[in-house]
Amino acid sequence: MRKAGKVYLIGAGPGDPELLTLKAVRALGEADVVLADDLVNRAVLAHAPKARVVEVGKRGGCKSTPQAFIHKLMLRLARAGKVVARVKGGDPFVFGRGGEELQYLRRGGIVVEVVSGITAGMCVPASLGIPVTHRDYVRGVTFITGHTQAGGDINWEALSRSGTTLVIYMGMAQLGEITTQLSLAGMAPSTPACAIQHGTLPLQRQVISTLEGLCEAVKRAALGSPAVVVIGEVVSLAAVARNTETLRQVA
Amino acid sequence: MRKAGKVYLIGAGPGDPELLTLKAVRALGEADVVLADDLVNRAVLAHAPKARVVEVGKRGGCKSTPQAFIHKLMLRLARAGKVVARVKGGDPFVFGRGGEELQYLRRGGIVVEVVSGITAGMCVPASLGIPVTHRDYVRGVTFITGHTQAGGDINWEALSRSGTTLVIYMGMAQLGEITTQLSLAGMAPSTPACAIQHGTLPLQRQVISTLEGLCEAVKRAALGSPAVVVIGEVVSLAAVARNTETLRQVA
Repeated sequence: MRKAGKVYLIGAGPGDPELLTLKAVRALGEADVVLADDLVNRAVLAHAPKARVVEVGKRGGCKSTPQAFIHKLMLRLARAGKVVARVKGGDPFVFGRGGEELQYLRRGGIVVEVVSGITAGMCVPASLGIPVTHRDYVRGVTFITGHTQAGGDINWEALSRSGTTLVIYMGMAQLGEITTQLSLAGMAPSTPACAIQHGTLPLQRQVISTLEGLCEAVKRAALGSPAVVVIGEVVSLAAVARNTETLRQVA
Repeated sequence: MRKAGKVYLIGAGPGDPELLTLKAVRALGEADVVLADDLVNRAVLAHAPKARVVEVGKRGGCKSTPQAFIHKLMLRLARAGKVVARVKGGDPFVFGRGGEELQYLRRGGIVVEVVSGITAGMCVPASLGIPVTHRDYVRGVTFITGHTQAGGDINWEALSRSGTTLVIYMGMAQLGEITTQLSLAGMAPSTPACAIQHGTLPLQRQVISTLEGLCEAVKRAALGSPAVVVIGEVVSLAAVARNTETLRQVA
């Protein structure tokens, strides 16, 4: 009898390979095949010494691997008895399509285990000393995607009044539109805001500005994707961190 | 010259000790003293073999260690050249007062390094197969605290219209009030909702219900704290996971 395959949906964290969990390390060690996204730090693959690595990145539209191909490949490998490690940047269930992959594989009768990862929206602001839920400022934090799916509109007015810090993933291409919408919704132009590219990696860069000034500041600094954008009073705490030795220089 | 002390603010994750990051393991290994909160799984302390452990839990008001005492203790230890590991459940910057501790220590000239952890609001729903940001249902996820600080009110009306899944930390004591407020704000009574206690631990238990039925279901199942409450259409995906071998039985 052939051994049963399975799929681990693994979050590799935001970039720094030390932000991998012990559970992810164990799952990678068991893997026969790794399917790795673009944003996964290649240092992570050292934990999967016996695995064949298949690159299935699909960043920003160019030279993409269709999602349907990834689905079918995982299904075929698991049915052939392989242990598959599907590795994604951040957390597989935070804008990672992990939910879609889970549904597809379950329908196919495959055993799936989700291994959560550190998501950028929490950890990348923390790298600048920004506590996204600081109770003196907010009641919580909202993670949203700026990368709009057809037909999906964001209620910026409700978000601006939610009393939460806003963290926007994949928002760099739409940054002008996003900051305009928040201003129109009544958010103060002076609200602290920042954008952080390549968070937790040695090449991390950021600009700290205001809702009003962010778009121009990002352009001036030539920041691009991948990045997270943080909007809210807690961003003012980043300044505190400017001169400490453990935090990177604020641009 | 005495060696310089420092403080690591470490997130130990939601419960399962395998959800610790490699970075947290390294920091614990360097620690001379560990200050551990109630909700930190004691298995985590095995990674700090040379450390003295100080219990500084302050769960729900009883037999609490005042925050000011914790602040001063960390400051004193770091000034005495000790490497201090301040270990919190989940992530130190998600409702963990890590921001306050960072500010206090920075003002005291102490070097602080934040080591992010997996937060319950993401990982605990994932344990039931609930992808909190599934793009077919929502544009994102909001983490809020149900434990209100004096004067701080939550805008449930804005949250109900935010187009995000709502994940409520420390909400069990206020569950009736929270579900009532969301109903009054216009959220459909049939909106899927669940409460999950002791997420990711062997004693994890949950109820899956609706906005309207959750409070009664929680009472019937005698669920208590610590727990996370998840409200939104994505909760309907939990049912998919009911009969799979890798996910725990849904109550």
